[in-house]
Amino acid sequence: MSIEAIAAAIRDVPDFPKPGIIFKDISPILENPDLFAEVIDRLAGAWDGKGIEAVAAVDARGFLFGAAVAYKLHTSLITVRKKGKLPRDTVAVKYDLEYGSNTLEIHADAVKPGGKVLVIDDLLATGGTVRAAIELIEKLGGKVAGVEFLMELCFLNGRAQLDGYQVHSLVKVD
Amino acid sequence: MSIEAIAAAIRDVPDFPKPGIIFKDISPILENPDLFAEVIDRLAGAWDGKGIEAVAAVDARGFLFGAAVAYKLHTSLITVRKKGKLPRDTVAVKYDLEYGSNTLEIHADAVKPGGKVLVIDDLLATGGTVRAAIELIEKLGGKVAGVEFLMELCFLNGRAQLDGYQVHSLVKVD
Repeated sequence: MSIEAIAAAIRDVPDFPKPGIIFKDISPILENPDLFAEVIDRLAGAWDGKGIEAVAAVDARGFLFGAAVAYKLHTSLITVRKKGKLPRDTVAVKYDLEYGSNTLEIHADAVKPGGKVLVIDDLLATGGTVRAAIELIEKLGGKVAGVEFLMELCFLNGRAQLDGYQVHSLVKVD
Repeated sequence: MSIEAIAAAIRDVPDFPKPGIIFKDISPILENPDLFAEVIDRLAGAWDGKGIEAVAAVDARGFLFGAAVAYKLHTSLITVRKKGKLPRDTVAVKYDLEYGSNTLEIHADAVKPGGKVLVIDDLLATGGTVRAAIELIEKLGGKVAGVEFLMELCFLNGRAQLDGYQVHSLVKVD
């Protein structure tokens, strides 16, 4: 299946979660076994044999892609979670969203010092979320080998926040 | 790797999210590639070739297991989400938790009528969450072929809520 088929399955939902925002609904990709498999194979494929030790998946839609990629690459799976979800000692970063603000946390012992980590989320918008995830991993001594997204909203220029990192998105929306 | 190795990796965290609750932390399983792969292979293995058309994964920790199982079984992946996260028309069910209450939603078009669905979550506690997920799928005409958990807290007797369903948990905590 092609990138075009993946892109065509993403559905625009106007005014969600609030007026003026066009939400990109990825459910049709998840609900099509061929498309979902293709997305996971493409996300994982670029990193096969490159020594990735952990996939860091961002709460909650990033879990859907990160978990399957970690399984496929046979790596550790680190959950980057919203505030208050992780039960043990955490490190936290507060950041701005396209709409509002948020705090992300990871367990303080989740990252192996020097370990090569691949960060995965569904969407690159302004880049605030993934920037926070990177900061958490680096705080704990991890090395961010790459950052991957199903989809990138190019007009929001989130890549400007990711200078110096290897960034890859399957579907680019101009 | 054995069930004992999986069970031994789960960590008790007392008084989380509030005093008196012993939280079962599954992060050490996720962070060990061999254990995570073993869990996914066991969860998926029981259903290989049984005609499962969709895995319904419960927000958010259920996503970690459900997504990888859907990938492995090459099925559709349905997200059962907390209130307000899904952008299109939804059906909703409110239910009681071990501590507090919650509402789950799925997209109204997420389930193929008559489709065989496997419901996956990390934990069977009192059963309220999974009961709500089953109700949502059946409301939309889906057939719940089975219900799977990484872990079951047997002393809470959540199975009593799942009478008539094929229920499977990898790790049983008495």
